[in-house]
Amino acid sequence: MLPKDLLEPLGLDALLVTRPENVRYLSGFPHPEDAQVLITGEGAFLLTDPRYPEAERESRIPAKVLRREEREALLKTLKGRVGFEAEHLPYAALERLRELVPAEWVPTKGVVEKLRLRKTPEEVERIRKAQALAEEALAHVLPLLRPGVEEREIALEVEFFLKRRGAEGAAFPPIVASGERGALPHARASEKRLKAGELVTLDLGARLEGYHSDMTRTFALGRPKEELRRAYKAVAEALEAALAALAPGKTGKEVDAVARKALEAHGLDRYFVHSLGHGVGLAVHEGPSLSPYGEDVLEPGMVVTVEPGVYLPGLGGVRLEELVLLTESGVELLSRFPRDFQEL
Amino acid sequence: MLPKDLLEPLGLDALLVTRPENVRYLSGFPHPEDAQVLITGEGAFLLTDPRYPEAERESRIPAKVLRREEREALLKTLKGRVGFEAEHLPYAALERLRELVPAEWVPTKGVVEKLRLRKTPEEVERIRKAQALAEEALAHVLPLLRPGVEEREIALEVEFFLKRRGAEGAAFPPIVASGERGALPHARASEKRLKAGELVTLDLGARLEGYHSDMTRTFALGRPKEELRRAYKAVAEALEAALAALAPGKTGKEVDAVARKALEAHGLDRYFVHSLGHGVGLAVHEGPSLSPYGEDVLEPGMVVTVEPGVYLPGLGGVRLEELVLLTESGVELLSRFPRDFQEL
Ligand SMILES: [Mn+2]
Ligand SMILES: [Mn+2]
Repeated sequence: MLPKDLLEPLGLDALLVTRPENVRYLSGFPHPEDAQVLITGEGAFLLTDPRYPEAERESRIPAKVLRREEREALLKTLKGRVGFEAEHLPYAALERLRELVPAEWVPTKGVVEKLRLRKTPEEVERIRKAQALAEEALAHVLPLLRPGVEEREIALEVEFFLKRRGAEGAAFPPIVASGERGALPHARASEKRLKAGELVTLDLGARLEGYHSDMTRTFALGRPKEELRRAYKAVAEALEAALAALAPGKTGKEVDAVARKALEAHGLDRYFVHSLGHGVGLAVHEGPSLSPYGEDVLEPGMVVTVEPGVYLPGLGGVRLEELVLLTESGVELLSRFPRDFQEL
Repeated sequence: MLPKDLLEPLGLDALLVTRPENVRYLSGFPHPEDAQVLITGEGAFLLTDPRYPEAERESRIPAKVLRREEREALLKTLKGRVGFEAEHLPYAALERLRELVPAEWVPTKGVVEKLRLRKTPEEVERIRKAQALAEEALAHVLPLLRPGVEEREIALEVEFFLKRRGAEGAAFPPIVASGERGALPHARASEKRLKAGELVTLDLGARLEGYHSDMTRTFALGRPKEELRRAYKAVAEALEAALAALAPGKTGKEVDAVARKALEAHGLDRYFVHSLGHGVGLAVHEGPSLSPYGEDVLEPGMVVTVEPGVYLPGLGGVRLEELVLLTESGVELLSRFPRDFQEL
């Protein structure tokens, strides 16, 4: 996209991009926490500091490696209406910019995030690769899923596998939640040991060249209690229903409601305490949001998770999560790992 | 510290703490990215959401597990002057708070950061443990430092070792920079293989119970070029000089200047392209700053790095970094790994 085409509709003369994922999106620069992108009528430039002398080579757009004073001098040349990322820039950083630069600083929201919503084929390919690697990691740790093994051990093995195989890392610390801990949606893997008859939830993703994946499976260690088997069935149904409902033109809210309704049929909707899903890309959680508040309208090229869950305090939990690409007519599953009920 | 003693000098009726390290400092809650601390005349409370039903147990201060509407209802009860963390809170988040809550929102800077500058004995103990673990990791990978081994392999082994031994993770992705890559202060470990005659710089730390460590060593693989040996000697002298100069009452700037002067004596000061050091604690980079801009006055109980370096483009680099505790009279080294010139 030409700088002009981005700036003109916003009535801006320039835009300062500070959110790391947005900086990486616009530049490809792999150290976006230490860089910004400045878009002016003349073009888009990466700004970074002398810690990154190779920035020019590592960035798709021209890079300026500047010391503090040089950076300030450059910013001082800005004129007119200059946009900043209001959801990211801290209040005090804006105050400093306002003091330094006699331009009109204009809050913007979601400008680059909006460009990021629909993935290019190259982006989808990267997410697909990250997902494939995460599935290899899951297959690799399956033999560890047996009574007596610590949750932490499994999570570490996932991470080590991903990194050994070239990932920048796990997309997030892998979740391994067994037995009662399965009732905590965000349980970190702990020192708890797996036990026979428990369900164990594994939520894992890879980060590869900046792009993320995200998938969850819940396995049974032998025969779990009837309530847990029912919960599994309900979650699987909610997932199927949501996947069938997902299509361009729907809002995130509508699809979220479909999953909740499927759980309601089993009297389990009140145990589904989080959103149905989220976009995945340069951030592991990004737009669009599939949630009761999600007003975003789904479009082809979006990549989202669908992850209904049921969390029964004191008993355990089930979550199944697929990673999908919105197509012209519906969805393509990027996650391919089997999700049928499995007693290991 | 009593809420009153914190709020009164600032002329505040309440303070909303959002920066994760500050939230963890005040509460001990291990998921501070998803929580805030609200300090009012009645006390300090952790605010989080239903993803963390165990917050009450995991926080040292009373925790409120609130859904979005409940959180908003609570904030709406705030009256008078309410402080926010201006260096952390994004501009748009402040705008939302201002719309929601009819109080006077007052920017504050560094309130909790200031409390964090001087470490308690318990905090020093945690940093000491993190440092000791990182040194074990360094000893563990020393045998890998030989020609033909990939930088990445060494960095991965550091990370795996730390995690296997109970660290939350590495304090930052371990830096392994060999040969010419040693001239990049922030080189990520790459696929480059170590070669005979090179210097290799390892910069590594552990994160343990929220606290970090940070240390750098540069090793020689056999006999390096004369210029590199001279650089090593100069950096070692700069480090010694800075350590001798470090004492309560000095500013960060003064100590930084001592190191630069020592390098100047070797004509190498212009190759020292970053700050001399930084505080370490719940963040791996925090106050005080030892830099040409560092106005902070050093005090007993502060924990800082001292890390002079020389980066010779196309040739290689040397950095030596110690982690030290400011005492009443000078410093205590928390890093104990030998730093004399070693040809492996
Ligand atoms: Mn997810
Ligand atoms: Mn350091």
